Amino acid sequence: MALVYVALLHFPVYDKNGAVVTSAVTHMDIHDIARSGRTFGVRRFYVVTPVAAARELSERILAHWGTGHGAAYNRTRKDALAIVRLTDDLDRTITDVELDAGATPLLLVTSARTRHPTISYAALRRLVHEGGRPLLVLFGTGWGLTEEVVGRADYLLPAITGVDDYNHLSVRTAASIILDRMCGARDQAEEALS
Amino acid sequence: MALVYVALLHFPVYDKNGAVVTSAVTHMDIHDIARSGRTFGVRRFYVVTPVAAARELSERILAHWGTGHGAAYNRTRKDALAIVRLTDDLDRTITDVELDAGATPLLLVTSARTRHPTISYAALRRLVHEGGRPLLVLFGTGWGLTEEVVGRADYLLPAITGVDDYNHLSVRTAASIILDRMCGARDQAEEALS
Repeated sequence: MALVYVALLHFPVYDKNGAVVTSAVTHMDIHDIARSGRTFGVRRFYVVTPVAAARELSERILAHWGTGHGAAYNRTRKDALAIVRLTDDLDRTITDVELDAGATPLLLVTSARTRHPTISYAALRRLVHEGGRPLLVLFGTGWGLTEEVVGRADYLLPAITGVDDYNHLSVRTAASIILDRMCGARDQAEEALS
Repeated sequence: MALVYVALLHFPVYDKNGAVVTSAVTHMDIHDIARSGRTFGVRRFYVVTPVAAARELSERILAHWGTGHGAAYNRTRKDALAIVRLTDDLDRTITDVELDAGATPLLLVTSARTRHPTISYAALRRLVHEGGRPLLVLFGTGWGLTEEVVGRADYLLPAITGVDDYNHLSVRTAASIILDRMCGARDQAEEALS
């Protein structure tokens, strides 16, 4: 299995009007994506923000669940949040992955706006199961990752859709669905295809 | 396609210590599951609680997004929340589905504790795509649906797992993953199996 990493970027992302902004860190995102990450075998989940105060607050909350009262209250939450790392920007995140994995990760970008994907989920699932280079999956908060970040990706994943072109998922749930498609255990009938 | 309904139960559910309780309504759950539901073609998403004050507060918040300032601010949120219905209990929820669909729904239960599932996700996906009876998927808040509710199900779905037996997902993300497995659009390579 390839090592899988996830990064949730709070900068640079678009706001509702297309301006490049720094979004606020939402603690529900950290908990939900950490829990999904732990479930699907993600090695590290990076919460990426240039705002030092936001990283410090997050570190305090993580300490509560990691070693404080919360660790005794909810052991499974402690296990999930143990994969969280706080970083300043994408470049330092990539460096941390390189140090951990011993190789430069392939960058995967997901966006509800992707019109021309360059890899299918089935192919991504094969990449995971065949091993090889580590994979770093980038998610954007706010109204999504900027074109600059999207342009750095090795692969663009298809937007997640169902019955029509409505695809306004929360980043928490989009990340979980993508991790499930990449790494989730499957029925035998389903495994036949991947 | 079969009509798909989702219900999020706040009673009867277990608390951390196994007592049967009524859990608080979490508005993040309503938004996230409505957004996922709208994406994956869910016809109605029932928020089920016996607490009248909780239903009234939720109705006010839904009105904000449906017809108030929120409707103009975020049109896609309005579209998602339009599928939400508030009901008192499971029986009245089933009655509402019967009135809407003209047939009694098959009850599907998902639980992180399920040890003996009675349907695979591949088979469930076939049920959806073949049409036939409406499907009502039940999710529990707190520490999960009681045995009484689980005992009413026509089908028990497998717990969602990844690399090991850790499966402590939030109900928001678990619901989204299950809807994606049931109804999500797939790559052609993936469609070959379903």
